[in-house]
Amino acid sequence: MHPERPSPVVAQPDLSEQEFRAALLRVAEWVLDYRARAVALPVLARVRPGDVLSKLPPEPPAQPEPLERWLHDLDEIILPGITHWNHPGFLAYFPTSSSAPGVLGELIAAALNANGMLWQTSPAATELEQLVLRWYARALGLPADWFGILTDTASTSTLMALAAARDSAGLPTREQGLAGQPPLVLYCSEEAHSSVEKAALVLGLGHRGVRRIPTDAEFRLRPDALEAAIREDFSAGRKPFAVVATVGTTSATAVDPVPEIAEICQRHGLWLHVDAAYAGSAAVAPEFRWALAGCERADSFVANPHKWLFTTMDCSALFTRRPAAFRHSFSLVPEYLRTDAEGAVDLMNYTFQLGRRFRALKLWFVFRGFGTEGIAARIRAHARLAREFAAWVDAHPQLERLAPVHFSVVCFRVHPEAVDDEAALEKLNAAVLEQVNATGKVFLSHTRLRGCYCLRLAIGNLGTSREQIRTAFELVCRAAGLC
Amino acid sequence: MHPERPSPVVAQPDLSEQEFRAALLRVAEWVLDYRARAVALPVLARVRPGDVLSKLPPEPPAQPEPLERWLHDLDEIILPGITHWNHPGFLAYFPTSSSAPGVLGELIAAALNANGMLWQTSPAATELEQLVLRWYARALGLPADWFGILTDTASTSTLMALAAARDSAGLPTREQGLAGQPPLVLYCSEEAHSSVEKAALVLGLGHRGVRRIPTDAEFRLRPDALEAAIREDFSAGRKPFAVVATVGTTSATAVDPVPEIAEICQRHGLWLHVDAAYAGSAAVAPEFRWALAGCERADSFVANPHKWLFTTMDCSALFTRRPAAFRHSFSLVPEYLRTDAEGAVDLMNYTFQLGRRFRALKLWFVFRGFGTEGIAARIRAHARLAREFAAWVDAHPQLERLAPVHFSVVCFRVHPEAVDDEAALEKLNAAVLEQVNATGKVFLSHTRLRGCYCLRLAIGNLGTSREQIRTAFELVCRAAGLC
Repeated sequence: MHPERPSPVVAQPDLSEQEFRAALLRVAEWVLDYRARAVALPVLARVRPGDVLSKLPPEPPAQPEPLERWLHDLDEIILPGITHWNHPGFLAYFPTSSSAPGVLGELIAAALNANGMLWQTSPAATELEQLVLRWYARALGLPADWFGILTDTASTSTLMALAAARDSAGLPTREQGLAGQPPLVLYCSEEAHSSVEKAALVLGLGHRGVRRIPTDAEFRLRPDALEAAIREDFSAGRKPFAVVATVGTTSATAVDPVPEIAEICQRHGLWLHVDAAYAGSAAVAPEFRWALAGCERADSFVANPHKWLFTTMDCSALFTRRPAAFRHSFSLVPEYLRTDAEGAVDLMNYTFQLGRRFRALKLWFVFRGFGTEGIAARIRAHARLAREFAAWVDAHPQLERLAPVHFSVVCFRVHPEAVDDEAALEKLNAAVLEQVNATGKVFLSHTRLRGCYCLRLAIGNLGTSREQIRTAFELVCRAAGLC
Repeated sequence: MHPERPSPVVAQPDLSEQEFRAALLRVAEWVLDYRARAVALPVLARVRPGDVLSKLPPEPPAQPEPLERWLHDLDEIILPGITHWNHPGFLAYFPTSSSAPGVLGELIAAALNANGMLWQTSPAATELEQLVLRWYARALGLPADWFGILTDTASTSTLMALAAARDSAGLPTREQGLAGQPPLVLYCSEEAHSSVEKAALVLGLGHRGVRRIPTDAEFRLRPDALEAAIREDFSAGRKPFAVVATVGTTSATAVDPVPEIAEICQRHGLWLHVDAAYAGSAAVAPEFRWALAGCERADSFVANPHKWLFTTMDCSALFTRRPAAFRHSFSLVPEYLRTDAEGAVDLMNYTFQLGRRFRALKLWFVFRGFGTEGIAARIRAHARLAREFAAWVDAHPQLERLAPVHFSVVCFRVHPEAVDDEAALEKLNAAVLEQVNATGKVFLSHTRLRGCYCLRLAIGNLGTSREQIRTAFELVCRAAGLC
């Protein structure tokens, strides 16, 4: 068709007001119904690879299809392939809840569709983001004057922080890149999240740019080993530039000794980034403030509301006391993005992404819907359940706990007296895990601590109660033939 | 409070079923009402920096607040600070619509809250993502066997592609990093988006790692200049590794000569990444397929459904014929993320982020709600409106068009016969822009082409009709004193 030939007029650009009303109310009912029935569905999806794909047509429809057809396929094809993160029996990884306030915030954000790349492109999106991050910092007992920015994930937050750290190390990396510079090195513990190493790869540091520091008996980074590694690297002509301390490691939720690490960073002029993606939110409850000791000295700090602050995916909060370092790394303003809004913060200058969803809205709703005391009570309840589960493990002669329980995660394994071989224990526990998850009642994940394969129970879903963790315990015992 | 002291029980973990029902229906009504009244609101927010922030309390609430209070503040404080991307008079940047199917998809995705980091963590999220990206590729006439992955923004997609390109250039960058390697260089036109340069900075290449190639009279990258630059860099001991071609540049929507660029890339063994973030979607209408000529030879290709495919923020589609290169750059599987799902695709192995929202759902709904012919008709209508506007500009003796109109963007300026001085023209046009945007009826942005400041009208919102572009034209004429 020649572009100048008049083409058919689009009689109606979107669904009509009436159609959309009916559709939105229909979908709202679907959501309400889903929330009511999710608990009866198997937590972990039971499909095999390719099952979902094979049921869907390889070509997109040429003509519009009515909503009922989409919803039919949603129920028949998609839902059986969903692992239900909202299920109260979801006890794997770090659970994350789609709370009612979070869902309401997402719906309004979708309708507004504001893109907060510049202050001008939605001033309220930028300013509400600044506000809720101050709220979050205050709720955690962190400096309220830190600059905050929301990102999608902790991986992105850590990548941004380490980019700023790299470019603030006194080398002309922004202008000249890393070629011709001494090899830069960053440090984190053996137990730090894989996103630290991924960030190093993206940043051009390579695997060699990351030194994994040994941990102590409780899986915490050893400051003496850190100090020694830094000295060794300086002597060898390498350029240490940053340390990532973790508050709540992924496997065992260990808390690195941040005060000592901050001392070391200060002594050597290194950037301190704290990854508190999961455990940071715990500090909303004052009895968990201890975990953030020393974090006020961090150059950057990440905690994820989409982990333990009941906010829907995705929402990660990155804080820094050095916003100028982020601007140095990320600010690039082409003509088409220039504005005259003096005194305004343009968030695109602090990150590598340009487009920005209005994530602050759902986080604002979570704070308003629960209040900080309501959030603290929920976190406290989860931690109490974890301690209860740990007590059952400790009381059982054939179960073994493999790490302290600081927050809401328990690492443990089945360990019959007669079995001492690690390979046999792994085989046994992997089989237990598979059997437990196959029941569809709970979903646990696993990890490895000091080479030992272990089961990992994590509590973070709003709906999780004593019932689910008791079920999990009984299912483990039954699968292992312990009862 | 000591952690072992029993803490108050959370009587109700989330809003109750009844409360959530009432809240969801109330918010649905808010959304319907917002869509109906948005057209009467000023497109560009009229607040000053700090206005929104100053109206909000500096401390989060300790106790829950009722929904009506959140919605009251939303209406009174937030909404006046929103720039309405859904307003039919939003003609700035690249407009993006929150279509009805998109909003419905976001709502369900928020309720499911599935995190598709691994296949196992929601098989349907991974497989539906593969499906809709095949649909999208087919709809654009691109190879249906390309591997696709959804990201948040084109900036992220381009960063990922250039990371894969860097690590596939035959140097041990993943292991050793960039220190000690020859300086890597990538190429793009003077008109390429700032995200290309930002990606280079993140990747450790520095400003020096990007060579901006001059463009021809229609703002297209000049292949002869590209060839010369590559040869020069090879001779100087630098290591050329990638070219970014743009299909639809941000300022003028120019289309780089991809077939010639692909030839050059093949000759020199360089990775070809195509940035078709905006214009890629146009190819759903067959008369725009010409714009993607040669793209089938790309190593990677990005197009954004959240730009011109009526999908809510955020949604960017990254395609590649070299998925193994992405795995080489990004795969890192710690124990706690290992699964046994044989034959399954774990999307975390293709990107630096771990957590993944279920973005495929809204894109699936957009395809099903409009059908490819419906999408094509809407794109066609937008392009026709742009040509109409361009014709009005061309017919007016004191208006000047500064670039060809290929899609739905018109670059133009007021140019009275008596004024020849560029500084005076810029002042005049900047004043016109400010005056037009201050009416609140339309929102245009600006750019600079060959040093000339110009106004930029971009059509992409589903609701935009002849009425808004006529209004824009009349407002420009009035502000410039031309009528």
